[in-house]
Amino acid sequence: MLVLSAIKNVKEDIRTRLEADYPELTFSFCHGIEEAKEELPEAEIFITYGEDLNDELVKQAKKLKWIMVLSAGMEKMPFSQIDQQEILVTNARGIHAVPMAEYTFAMLLQIARQTKKVIANEQTHTWDKKLVMSEISGKTMGVLGTGAIGQEVARLAKAFRMKTIGVSKTGNPKPHFDETHATDKWEHVLEYADFVVAVMPSTSETIGFLRKEHFQMMLPHAIFLNMGRGDLVETETVLQAVRSKEIAHAVLDVFEEEPLPREHVLWEEENITVTPHHSGVSPQYQYRAFDIFVENLERYLQGQEEFINKIDPKRGY
Amino acid sequence: MLVLSAIKNVKEDIRTRLEADYPELTFSFCHGIEEAKEELPEAEIFITYGEDLNDELVKQAKKLKWIMVLSAGMEKMPFSQIDQQEILVTNARGIHAVPMAEYTFAMLLQIARQTKKVIANEQTHTWDKKLVMSEISGKTMGVLGTGAIGQEVARLAKAFRMKTIGVSKTGNPKPHFDETHATDKWEHVLEYADFVVAVMPSTSETIGFLRKEHFQMMLPHAIFLNMGRGDLVETETVLQAVRSKEIAHAVLDVFEEEPLPREHVLWEEENITVTPHHSGVSPQYQYRAFDIFVENLERYLQGQEEFINKIDPKRGY
Repeated sequence: MLVLSAIKNVKEDIRTRLEADYPELTFSFCHGIEEAKEELPEAEIFITYGEDLNDELVKQAKKLKWIMVLSAGMEKMPFSQIDQQEILVTNARGIHAVPMAEYTFAMLLQIARQTKKVIANEQTHTWDKKLVMSEISGKTMGVLGTGAIGQEVARLAKAFRMKTIGVSKTGNPKPHFDETHATDKWEHVLEYADFVVAVMPSTSETIGFLRKEHFQMMLPHAIFLNMGRGDLVETETVLQAVRSKEIAHAVLDVFEEEPLPREHVLWEEENITVTPHHSGVSPQYQYRAFDIFVENLERYLQGQEEFINKIDPKRGY
Repeated sequence: MLVLSAIKNVKEDIRTRLEADYPELTFSFCHGIEEAKEELPEAEIFITYGEDLNDELVKQAKKLKWIMVLSAGMEKMPFSQIDQQEILVTNARGIHAVPMAEYTFAMLLQIARQTKKVIANEQTHTWDKKLVMSEISGKTMGVLGTGAIGQEVARLAKAFRMKTIGVSKTGNPKPHFDETHATDKWEHVLEYADFVVAVMPSTSETIGFLRKEHFQMMLPHAIFLNMGRGDLVETETVLQAVRSKEIAHAVLDVFEEEPLPREHVLWEEENITVTPHHSGVSPQYQYRAFDIFVENLERYLQGQEEFINKIDPKRGY
């Protein structure tokens, strides 16, 4: 049984461990799809970041039974062809929770404590104790998206003694949220959230979810942070909200166009902080992703039908 | 009964509330000791930051029964004269816990996530996803000082799933610490602490507490953070530890000499981050400090003898 990976630079210790633990399997670790596609017709299991497949490649993969996507983004997966060939798809949803929660608090503290000015003062050897700082403790945080990432953000927010309010499609109660609301009636949350953190996935229902009127409802001292998907809100809407002081600051890790073009006005906007879609970056990434793969591999080899993070190809999540 | 305050710029709402709640008392809010010292001989209660008194002033304060110090630093208090006149002293110990804990995590996340480089990239419109970041979650934190501030730091560290090890004079167990060690046998902690956070007060026993050999025991990837007192360790010792790569980074908010002189080499050292003794700065400072004052005022007026943060003039803490 061929297990083919198109993941670049799989860590040596992960490869060695897999080969040692499963001597009955043949592993082929390729450096990207260009190298991997030759072997794809022979592979039963394919490990990918989910951005390198198309209908044609899937059609050629006649023996393929399972695609393990080592990320949470599924937008580029050719699901109808995958569905036709009845291929199992699982992903690594949830492994971004720790770094993305750390990103959230790093950025909120950075804004609250005026880190850019503090660093600029350090560079000019300026001892300025009078810089006005605020605290994040005890504030109210609205979290759009109550999945694994949203819950980890809310868990830490509770540790900072915040009130946490979650917004999701169903509005079902979730751990670490003091309140949860469904997306058909949630706008009032914006009227008392000091922080609005968006970690919604990109589905047809979340594209353009946040509009001009939502920013008009937010508190003037509110910080808006988007690390979910760039198409949740039009860039122009955020820019205007900040410029007209409807909110105090926007922290953006995701954009309608990525990489954000060098000449884009967002880079220069004083009260918008731009980061290069790195909220999920972690030195633990491969380890956590392959841990999920191994757990699912055990189940696969035992012929089980329950898998961690199984994706419905018809829904795409 | 005259309640005299030398605190500059006491917030209007605090003054109004005190005057409304205690119509039987006479409050005099002065802008510093120069303005206050005239009234000091008539005052029964004096509110100060604790840096403006001397033997002469205390001697003149013949009616003085209680000094409320709105800070935790007691180094400049003329305690022997205060003791002679049997004046009650209380302070605002503990109110720095929230901002100092926020400072700690802001700074650890700043180093772990390479914030200076991220901000520099933003300034040059550079989209760089490849910057290596580490996580703070799951690490081990040693905290020198297990009082109110150390406990708040440890509480948040536990939320970040860290192992927390406290070091204090007695080594008595304290909330939020997985282990605690006494200062007569604690050095082994340095061998496995990813972060070493110092919040020790300045007493004769903590001056020069950390020495060259301690840094030699620390992990090469360790981050050392000092926000307690600058005389805990000689600046030169920290500088050499960083330069010889005994530790990865030092975050310093306190110094042997403050303000840190503009020409000091620390400002320019790549792996030392200098902040201007602002870890305790908070917009909530006056509110929290006066909350303690009011609680003690109630007890004082009722003739109780137990007070929050009562200081022993003979020990100075």
